[in-house]
Amino acid sequence: MIDPLTRWATYGEKPDYAGLMTYAGLPYTEDPAELQGADVAIVGAPMDELTSDSPGTRFGPRAIRAASCAPGGHLEAGVDALREVLRVVDFGDAPILPADPVRSHIAIQETVAQVLAAGAIPVILGGDHSIAEPDIRAVAEVHGPVGLIHFDTHTDTGREVFGATLSHGSCMYRLVESGHIDPSRYVQIGLRGYWPGETEFGWQAERGIVSHFMHDVRDRGIRAVVADALEHVGAGPVFLSVDIDVLDPAFAPGTGTPEPGGMTSGELLWACREIASAVDLVGHEIVEVLPDRIGSRDITALVAERVVRETLTGLALARVREPART
Amino acid sequence: MIDPLTRWATYGEKPDYAGLMTYAGLPYTEDPAELQGADVAIVGAPMDELTSDSPGTRFGPRAIRAASCAPGGHLEAGVDALREVLRVVDFGDAPILPADPVRSHIAIQETVAQVLAAGAIPVILGGDHSIAEPDIRAVAEVHGPVGLIHFDTHTDTGREVFGATLSHGSCMYRLVESGHIDPSRYVQIGLRGYWPGETEFGWQAERGIVSHFMHDVRDRGIRAVVADALEHVGAGPVFLSVDIDVLDPAFAPGTGTPEPGGMTSGELLWACREIASAVDLVGHEIVEVLPDRIGSRDITALVAERVVRETLTGLALARVREPART
Amino acid sequence: MIDPLTRWATYGEKPDYAGLMTYAGLPYTEDPAELQGADVAIVGAPMDELTSDSPGTRFGPRAIRAASCAPGGHLEAGVDALREVLRVVDFGDAPILPADPVRSHIAIQETVAQVLAAGAIPVILGGDHSIAEPDIRAVAEVHGPVGLIHFDTHTDTGREVFGATLSHGSCMYRLVESGHIDPSRYVQIGLRGYWPGETEFGWQAERGIVSHFMHDVRDRGIRAVVADALEHVGAGPVFLSVDIDVLDPAFAPGTGTPEPGGMTSGELLWACREIASAVDLVGHEIVEVLPDRIGSRDITALVAERVVRETLTGLALARVREPART
Amino acid sequence: MIDPLTRWATYGEKPDYAGLMTYAGLPYTEDPAELQGADVAIVGAPMDELTSDSPGTRFGPRAIRAASCAPGGHLEAGVDALREVLRVVDFGDAPILPADPVRSHIAIQETVAQVLAAGAIPVILGGDHSIAEPDIRAVAEVHGPVGLIHFDTHTDTGREVFGATLSHGSCMYRLVESGHIDPSRYVQIGLRGYWPGETEFGWQAERGIVSHFMHDVRDRGIRAVVADALEHVGAGPVFLSVDIDVLDPAFAPGTGTPEPGGMTSGELLWACREIASAVDLVGHEIVEVLPDRIGSRDITALVAERVVRETLTGLALARVREPART
Amino acid sequence: MIDPLTRWATYGEKPDYAGLMTYAGLPYTEDPAELQGADVAIVGAPMDELTSDSPGTRFGPRAIRAASCAPGGHLEAGVDALREVLRVVDFGDAPILPADPVRSHIAIQETVAQVLAAGAIPVILGGDHSIAEPDIRAVAEVHGPVGLIHFDTHTDTGREVFGATLSHGSCMYRLVESGHIDPSRYVQIGLRGYWPGETEFGWQAERGIVSHFMHDVRDRGIRAVVADALEHVGAGPVFLSVDIDVLDPAFAPGTGTPEPGGMTSGELLWACREIASAVDLVGHEIVEVLPDRIGSRDITALVAERVVRETLTGLALARVREPART
Amino acid sequence: MIDPLTRWATYGEKPDYAGLMTYAGLPYTEDPAELQGADVAIVGAPMDELTSDSPGTRFGPRAIRAASCAPGGHLEAGVDALREVLRVVDFGDAPILPADPVRSHIAIQETVAQVLAAGAIPVILGGDHSIAEPDIRAVAEVHGPVGLIHFDTHTDTGREVFGATLSHGSCMYRLVESGHIDPSRYVQIGLRGYWPGETEFGWQAERGIVSHFMHDVRDRGIRAVVADALEHVGAGPVFLSVDIDVLDPAFAPGTGTPEPGGMTSGELLWACREIASAVDLVGHEIVEVLPDRIGSRDITALVAERVVRETLTGLALARVREPART
Repeated sequence: MIDPLTRWATYGEKPDYAGLMTYAGLPYTEDPAELQGADVAIVGAPMDELTSDSPGTRFGPRAIRAASCAPGGHLEAGVDALREVLRVVDFGDAPILPADPVRSHIAIQETVAQVLAAGAIPVILGGDHSIAEPDIRAVAEVHGPVGLIHFDTHTDTGREVFGATLSHGSCMYRLVESGHIDPSRYVQIGLRGYWPGETEFGWQAERGIVSHFMHDVRDRGIRAVVADALEHVGAGPVFLSVDIDVLDPAFAPGTGTPEPGGMTSGELLWACREIASAVDLVGHEIVEVLPDRIGSRDITALVAERVVRETLTGLALARVREPART
Repeated sequence: MIDPLTRWATYGEKPDYAGLMTYAGLPYTEDPAELQGADVAIVGAPMDELTSDSPGTRFGPRAIRAASCAPGGHLEAGVDALREVLRVVDFGDAPILPADPVRSHIAIQETVAQVLAAGAIPVILGGDHSIAEPDIRAVAEVHGPVGLIHFDTHTDTGREVFGATLSHGSCMYRLVESGHIDPSRYVQIGLRGYWPGETEFGWQAERGIVSHFMHDVRDRGIRAVVADALEHVGAGPVFLSVDIDVLDPAFAPGTGTPEPGGMTSGELLWACREIASAVDLVGHEIVEVLPDRIGSRDITALVAERVVRETLTGLALARVREPART
Repeated sequence: MIDPLTRWATYGEKPDYAGLMTYAGLPYTEDPAELQGADVAIVGAPMDELTSDSPGTRFGPRAIRAASCAPGGHLEAGVDALREVLRVVDFGDAPILPADPVRSHIAIQETVAQVLAAGAIPVILGGDHSIAEPDIRAVAEVHGPVGLIHFDTHTDTGREVFGATLSHGSCMYRLVESGHIDPSRYVQIGLRGYWPGETEFGWQAERGIVSHFMHDVRDRGIRAVVADALEHVGAGPVFLSVDIDVLDPAFAPGTGTPEPGGMTSGELLWACREIASAVDLVGHEIVEVLPDRIGSRDITALVAERVVRETLTGLALARVREPART
Repeated sequence: MIDPLTRWATYGEKPDYAGLMTYAGLPYTEDPAELQGADVAIVGAPMDELTSDSPGTRFGPRAIRAASCAPGGHLEAGVDALREVLRVVDFGDAPILPADPVRSHIAIQETVAQVLAAGAIPVILGGDHSIAEPDIRAVAEVHGPVGLIHFDTHTDTGREVFGATLSHGSCMYRLVESGHIDPSRYVQIGLRGYWPGETEFGWQAERGIVSHFMHDVRDRGIRAVVADALEHVGAGPVFLSVDIDVLDPAFAPGTGTPEPGGMTSGELLWACREIASAVDLVGHEIVEVLPDRIGSRDITALVAERVVRETLTGLALARVREPART
Repeated sequence: MIDPLTRWATYGEKPDYAGLMTYAGLPYTEDPAELQGADVAIVGAPMDELTSDSPGTRFGPRAIRAASCAPGGHLEAGVDALREVLRVVDFGDAPILPADPVRSHIAIQETVAQVLAAGAIPVILGGDHSIAEPDIRAVAEVHGPVGLIHFDTHTDTGREVFGATLSHGSCMYRLVESGHIDPSRYVQIGLRGYWPGETEFGWQAERGIVSHFMHDVRDRGIRAVVADALEHVGAGPVFLSVDIDVLDPAFAPGTGTPEPGGMTSGELLWACREIASAVDLVGHEIVEVLPDRIGSRDITALVAERVVRETLTGLALARVREPART
Repeated sequence: MIDPLTRWATYGEKPDYAGLMTYAGLPYTEDPAELQGADVAIVGAPMDELTSDSPGTRFGPRAIRAASCAPGGHLEAGVDALREVLRVVDFGDAPILPADPVRSHIAIQETVAQVLAAGAIPVILGGDHSIAEPDIRAVAEVHGPVGLIHFDTHTDTGREVFGATLSHGSCMYRLVESGHIDPSRYVQIGLRGYWPGETEFGWQAERGIVSHFMHDVRDRGIRAVVADALEHVGAGPVFLSVDIDVLDPAFAPGTGTPEPGGMTSGELLWACREIASAVDLVGHEIVEVLPDRIGSRDITALVAERVVRETLTGLALARVREPART
């Protein structure tokens, strides 16, 4: 394991733009043995071959790491997740292969499985949303069918997208059908726009999937919506999947299928922390980040990084509250 | 007429970035005869010679088409305007001439008149806001003086702007004075900033023009403001003019005279749908889009395209509600 | 003094992109003698050597001037600060020296002192936030320890930052310790993220500094927060320091240490006007603008310019209300 | 067929940024029957799923069309290819499907075959270089194994690339092995950098493939290199494949695998015209254009468009010289 | 007159990004009386309403000033034009009016005439190339019909462009026909691409205008071409007009009608210095700069600024050589 | 030491955009003990506080690594430096501190000294050119006063720059005066523009420093200039310092003080390989890279990376030729 702090004495001295580029400047390893004792492991999934519009999310994991800042106490939550509560390790990128999404999915699933085998919670940085398939499959093989809280503009429950069954728009359909997601504990938040259609929503209704549209968020407020979602997923294992395009393009311009009229950063960040602090979180992914600029100048990568940070903060809050659970 | 779906079986198979670039991948014609039976025709007005600050909105029509997505059911409204309710055709760009705004205005007015002659509602993609002159003139010559709901940072009622009588900042003054806009049915929404001054507001007051400032939107909410606007314009023909700079620069950075403190995308999109569903809509324009990037990566062109889509959705809601009206 | 209107008869004729580039096209001088009678003087402080992340704010003063528009009546406030109430002069940039922040601080302090000596209120365009040191020192040497209303993501009260005592993150600590800021009249608004930590907040509590976090703004509303701040600073001299990163990156992407979950432009602009109209304003700075584009196309420089404009409008409101005070 | 000149009387009146976006503003059809009599048909191949580094060339065909200018006489060659010599039609994009490169290749091959069936020469706009497979297969099925002049940084003769057999880096290997390219009439120009290795060059040597490295171009001059290439390919049918990354990144920054030290625009443009005027050209492709900006502001799309224009000019020169050949 | 060095002791201390933004940090005045004794005056002409493709060159004058560096000795020529030989003043922008190109031309002509009346040589920063009309008219009214050395991709000798007689593509036709340019002393350098056609070249031949195409520059070398040009224009007054699009888009991407295959910066810079040192220079313009970035980060504005600097250096060389001529 | 190939079997399988971001995907360590046996170690020096114009080169080391490609045989030189000849290790970034250039210089010098102590040649990625001070000091303390081949627009031999003695423009003066550079073996290549002046060139002449101006490169050719340089530096230890601004801005737009009229990539890349293969290379630095984009999309970072690659290739050629020297 390499600790980027080796050369600087503390996080207080190491600037974000210098030193080995790991998530939040945390220790890095590719050796599963070194994950023992970790609470959380970060995994990159740099693939975008199953995208239906603008590609480029293969650069997401690097951009999110580049935009990450040093650990510190969360000013609102009052907890320093990374230095005081959780042991988080950057487990590197899954060994994906360009132009070969099937083999890349296998690589991602195996890498996430290594995290789970070590007893850590996987946090996956995408990549296009098709990585939900390997991410959630790996988790469900350990924890059984998972509850899913899913922030997104789109349901991603197409049977196929542009004629392709394997797609960033069909992953959730496939995971429900394959039994890895428990549809009775699956909540979508932030839907808007013009896709999908009656077929997909009909199928969702049959399966008992609950959708909170963006107009619900606007009309009822994010707090009420999240409260409903928490009640719906209940006590079992929950996976938190965040497609950054749930945000309005003003807040996350760098994504492949942006849709105006979305959430604000304030809403999404609060929601992720709240959810992570309240559920039995077994995995988390942030996907569809299509970066353009360097470091924190890329505001989409930046807010994506903060989504992860809020989730970790929520997790830390839960651990502080219920230390036995760790 | 060319239908971009010729090669792909359905919209579900045709990606937005491939095939002939028409609005929403809809059929394209430049032949007025082929407009017969159309409910709506899209017209581009790619000119920006009457701009007072950053030029470049001549690229607006192409950018809006490039950012447009395939038809689909509106997730909130529950209607698929383009495939199930309205027959919408892309009628191409008016034959403008660079560096000759007077002749370009004539070309725009004639093209819009062809749409009207075919019994279709014109939806014009700008271009700078000076195109309101030919747009509304053509409409008023068919429908008589129109009511106007006008989203904008600026009133565009200058008698002249930087010494020029023909300008993107004087169009509404000229249309009122020429009798094409009925000032007693003219409502402005979203005004803010430092222009115009007492002279213009004095003239507006004399004419009975109603202004909802941005602080009214913030303080009273977009719903109350739109309700007032709808009551004020009442039952006659209404033209809906949207200057994209009514949005905050966060939501629409690509425009010639951006002004901070504006509307959110959520507010504007809802308002356009609501208005189009409630009034006797005789024409619509979206102007001042100054694009910079490719396809949906340009968030200003994207939100402008969605403004049109929401207007069409509102129109479809009205048609579904009152089928006799068609 | 050079008046950029020499060649154009009025502001109504001079476009923002032409003529000598001064703040709002106002008269320019570097001669302190010509400041006599001015109410406000604009000073640029183009330095960024004390930045801890992305540099480039040295281009801030030029970008803010380039994004500035002509004077005009404020549509909400109903006052034309620059043409009818205040005499504002652009006093140019302080003679900073690249790579020499200590000497640059001296240059800034001397330039601000010249403004004060002429009886005008200094408005300083940054530059990184370290310029608060010379800005506030100069003001406090005239007015005594100042009250401070400080909009920012960060408290900037580190004893040191990355090992450096002189930093854009330590300025407020140093100014309190040196007695130039009165900590009992110091209010921070908009704090969020992961810095600073317990040490700094402990020190702040000891000194009686009041912090309104971003979640306070979200939960209580900007009006309640500003009302509290105004009550807290009370009747003495007040300096208004605005770090543009208090805005969400959607509204101000061009800054060195952006943090998602911030304020909207609407909130900040209203707040600055309200504060300037209510307190005994003795100085104002807008800092951490890291521009990227030309003129008003740079939305961060644009909103920063409007922050200044709102402050001047608030000041004008106060003068109109209490003409004796001038 | 739609002629974008319908509304404007001549190319002299139609601006490049207005009207239906077709290649050079030429007539557009998707109906193979309308190709009869055409000398050349433009085909878009907007796919990039087989890319090994930066994706985004799926936007290439639109960007090349957007950057294209109206027909006109070539100032150096003295011939107006598009208005006076050749009948060129824009045949639209092949019906590719996102995330399904195998089916997209079939779609491309079929579309190119339609062009050939109509007796026209196909000019294909990529897309990643993997489209050489369907492009050249279609041509070779009509003309037999083709000679190939191939401008590129890379040989694209990998047996596999990152473990994938189907790739933009393996197309030429596959086409030689499948017998569609005649290796004894295959010339590469512009090779440089660090790929491929001994295996690939060994295989090339066995097959008799000739390589002109970038240092050959620098040392001997483009004229000598092209003369050698022309002599080597001799009299049979020749396909001209241009990977835009053969240019130095200064001239073509928008491409997926740029390599410094490349050709200038002047060299490449001259070479394409010279070759097209001298060989029996049976097909042409321009690939790996990864656009970023609007219209001619994207200098990579612009130079790619001019590559096509020079090839068409060379073809016109040949037709003028040997009218019987048509 | 304001001297931006007031606050810094020397050019060696004043950074380019600080202080009043004038050309090269030189003294600024708008008062013709203060031009007395000046050898050269810089004039901005920020208008682009007569552009036929991408607009935006109205930002050219500011961008060129922003990219300008302090005076200094020319490392190759060995002369410090601005500090030791010539007295150069920044005379500001002509009072153009947006959307009113006719009045803007008048304003430019009057401003240039003021420079000439003071005995100084005007150097005009564009702006689109239509400003050649007022620039050269003003010069010819003092010096009689001028010889012209004209670097450009295009001849700009259209009788009309897109139907408009007043255009950035018709200026040279109009100036020849109006007698302000002496066609027998008019040399064009760098022509390429696809415009204009036989009509224009026929007219040019009749008038005796000499054209050096880009292929002449490539084949014969810039030195031979410039030598021919100098011989052709001979001893009378010469105006040097440089359209930045004569450069290859690699060197000058920011321009409205870029054309690949152009000159290198090295060629153009040398040529301007050589010409200015050899002819009786009576005026100089640099046009069609369409900036995008801040300061020297905009490489087009930067090279345009250096074109001016080389011309001034050439002028200084002539003055040093023939002091009597001043 | 971490080997980024752990997860992928070979460089042929690992894409450049995935896995731990090290130089060329080479093994990474921060432990000096692990340098034993290395031929070369890469060191990042991410500081830019001593810049006189645009800052941002602190992001250079990350950008150069992000733009680096996998090892492979050099197509022209026929040697695979990184896999077959040299053992190269990425030794990470020196522990610089923001806003504290003096301590950062110490950190850089110590890190470079560790490389030297391990018997490896340091290759330093900047950062502004001031890092030449710690870089060359460390080398000279081991090898004695070094010969220097210095590619740059500027001499960097100012006694002070804008009043500062410590600057990216004074480093070479200081190193000569301190005895770390042997002025009799110091050659500058590529000088142009307007700085420095007579004082500096006078001092250079006294010290015997040889300058090849850019016009020498253009007139004599890069081969002749390099041959002269090699003869001049002769047989002793040589440091190769490359300021990326020696390239024309077309080839390297991302740098702080760009100057048109510079070298091409082809010239510089060849020169670095030639020099490294011919001299006793004891250290190499590439500086002033100011990145803007992601990965190889940043053409300045890309060409900077290739400069390093060519130097390593030259070094490998020397080792292959003279194996005893290792």
